[in-house]
Amino acid sequence: MQIKPGSVKPLFDNVLIKPLEEESKTPSGIVLPESAKEKPQIGQIMAVGPGAIDEDGKRILMSVKVGQKVIYKKWGGNEVKIDHQEWLVVEQKDIIAVIE
Amino acid sequence: MQIKPGSVKPLFDNVLIKPLEEESKTPSGIVLPESAKEKPQIGQIMAVGPGAIDEDGKRILMSVKVGQKVIYKKWGGNEVKIDHQEWLVVEQKDIIAVIE
Amino acid sequence: MQIKPGSVKPLFDNVLIKPLEEESKTPSGIVLPESAKEKPQIGQIMAVGPGAIDEDGKRILMSVKVGQKVIYKKWGGNEVKIDHQEWLVVEQKDIIAVIE
Amino acid sequence: MQIKPGSVKPLFDNVLIKPLEEESKTPSGIVLPESAKEKPQIGQIMAVGPGAIDEDGKRILMSVKVGQKVIYKKWGGNEVKIDHQEWLVVEQKDIIAVIE
Amino acid sequence: MQIKPGSVKPLFDNVLIKPLEEESKTPSGIVLPESAKEKPQIGQIMAVGPGAIDEDGKRILMSVKVGQKVIYKKWGGNEVKIDHQEWLVVEQKDIIAVIE
Amino acid sequence: MQIKPGSVKPLFDNVLIKPLEEESKTPSGIVLPESAKEKPQIGQIMAVGPGAIDEDGKRILMSVKVGQKVIYKKWGGNEVKIDHQEWLVVEQKDIIAVIE
Amino acid sequence: MQIKPGSVKPLFDNVLIKPLEEESKTPSGIVLPESAKEKPQIGQIMAVGPGAIDEDGKRILMSVKVGQKVIYKKWGGNEVKIDHQEWLVVEQKDIIAVIE
Repeated sequence: MQIKPGSVKPLFDNVLIKPLEEESKTPSGIVLPESAKEKPQIGQIMAVGPGAIDEDGKRILMSVKVGQKVIYKKWGGNEVKIDHQEWLVVEQKDIIAVIE
Repeated sequence: MQIKPGSVKPLFDNVLIKPLEEESKTPSGIVLPESAKEKPQIGQIMAVGPGAIDEDGKRILMSVKVGQKVIYKKWGGNEVKIDHQEWLVVEQKDIIAVIE
Repeated sequence: MQIKPGSVKPLFDNVLIKPLEEESKTPSGIVLPESAKEKPQIGQIMAVGPGAIDEDGKRILMSVKVGQKVIYKKWGGNEVKIDHQEWLVVEQKDIIAVIE
Repeated sequence: MQIKPGSVKPLFDNVLIKPLEEESKTPSGIVLPESAKEKPQIGQIMAVGPGAIDEDGKRILMSVKVGQKVIYKKWGGNEVKIDHQEWLVVEQKDIIAVIE
Repeated sequence: MQIKPGSVKPLFDNVLIKPLEEESKTPSGIVLPESAKEKPQIGQIMAVGPGAIDEDGKRILMSVKVGQKVIYKKWGGNEVKIDHQEWLVVEQKDIIAVIE
Repeated sequence: MQIKPGSVKPLFDNVLIKPLEEESKTPSGIVLPESAKEKPQIGQIMAVGPGAIDEDGKRILMSVKVGQKVIYKKWGGNEVKIDHQEWLVVEQKDIIAVIE
Repeated sequence: MQIKPGSVKPLFDNVLIKPLEEESKTPSGIVLPESAKEKPQIGQIMAVGPGAIDEDGKRILMSVKVGQKVIYKKWGGNEVKIDHQEWLVVEQKDIIAVIE
């Protein structure tokens, strides 16, 4: 199924990100960490969910918005194929900084 | 036992999904992840539970509804064989986006 | 010790289930998952506990009842031998849908 | 040290159980699960703790009592040697049903 | 550094225990469990902490006292060498019963 | 993508740190711990997030500020390449001390 | 970077400890536990953090103070090199007893 940009509406505190950097994948498919630290990725926010729901049933406002360039944790996201590219849906907590 | 579409009523915040894409299974049965990121799946919602019960005994309203095309996490669901097809029951939190 | 149907009274939110489908066991005893998804099972509810006790000491009402056909997660239950059959005691949260 | 029946007073929500069935131990000491499901055990309650203490400092009443035959999870308990027998101390939550 | 009995004052809900039974250690240092059940140990309480602090900053009263013979979980404690003996500091929750 | 110092704005309780000491990396890429204890690192804080959001939706004030030299846990951070250097984004809880 | 005693100010409920006993390290760097129990260490408290912050934003008072000899869990701390010695920063919860 073809998914078009703009058609993906994240739920809860999920955020749709278009990566701006290639990830280094080992040819064998086995991922060997270079060091014990996670290498975060850089991408652009394409869509933002309405926010998670707290214990009292209220929406928690989102801290990021569409268009921002952000640094996100490498290991947290879910890949979505959009226009033959690998985009990502990540939870907001896995976005660690905005690049201005 | 044969299960018919329409006869499955999910409990709590479970959601019944009919997958729209085939999953790639390795012949040997051993699943080797291509990368460290989860590849989510696309499917159509066929039935929705009444919602989870919060700490005060109240139902939490569901954020998805029957008929929606959704992206869901690959690793979270439970397979159910319905009409010789593998459908899935997933918790709502494992649905990360709606496709409009 | 012989256990008779009807003599088992589940505690808390436990539910006694009589499976309606055989599980496929590998002869060697080693369980190799076919895919990363859990295959739920189908069974009939034979007895229902009085409900779990919440933080304020109150019973949480059960959402399932005796006689219902249900789909439950394969990995969650405890086997009990009743009348030379393997029945199961599962927590209610591991029951994901009712079949009507 | 010899421990006599009746001298063991469980703390909190612990329950002393005298098993009514032999467990199958593999000769090598390595425990190979037959299937992915836990096989619960059957035993008689010999002593019951006063109950766990909740967040407000109050005792939570126990749901089981001395003399009951119960089904308990196989993997949860601590063995105590009493009168040359292996008895068990389990937490109440690992008792899943009463046999009447 | 030599530690004398009586000089160890446990913090929070820690309890100092003098074991009354030898533990079976394998010569190689590798601990192979005999069965899946933990074998608890028996010891005498030599010192008791003032109690843990709850969420409101209040001390939670201790349920055990100095001099009691108790059964404690084998895997939970920290060894302290006192008078050339291996004593233990365990959290109160790892003491499962008093022997009277 | 080139990231300039000053352009990275951490979110929530994340803190941007410029390491002051080289980390010892094994040539093979496999990290063998010298001992069971983590070796923390020393760095300078370059940017501080606005604080995490608590359960009531309020910001929790940060305890560290820009310019401080700090000791942080080695295993907690995410690397960011800034000006051809490996900087780090860590959560405030992984900063264990300030050096004055 | 040289760190001087007195310049390290722990954050939250961290505690700076100067070990009083050598730890046994295996030459190969692989740590083989002698038994399943943790062997705690003895040290002197050199600096104490201001206390953790509870859910209501209030400081939780510390239970230990500078100068005390304490027993702490071996596996919990972070090493800091001070005056060519390996000191430790541990969380207060990993200090299990004071030696008087």
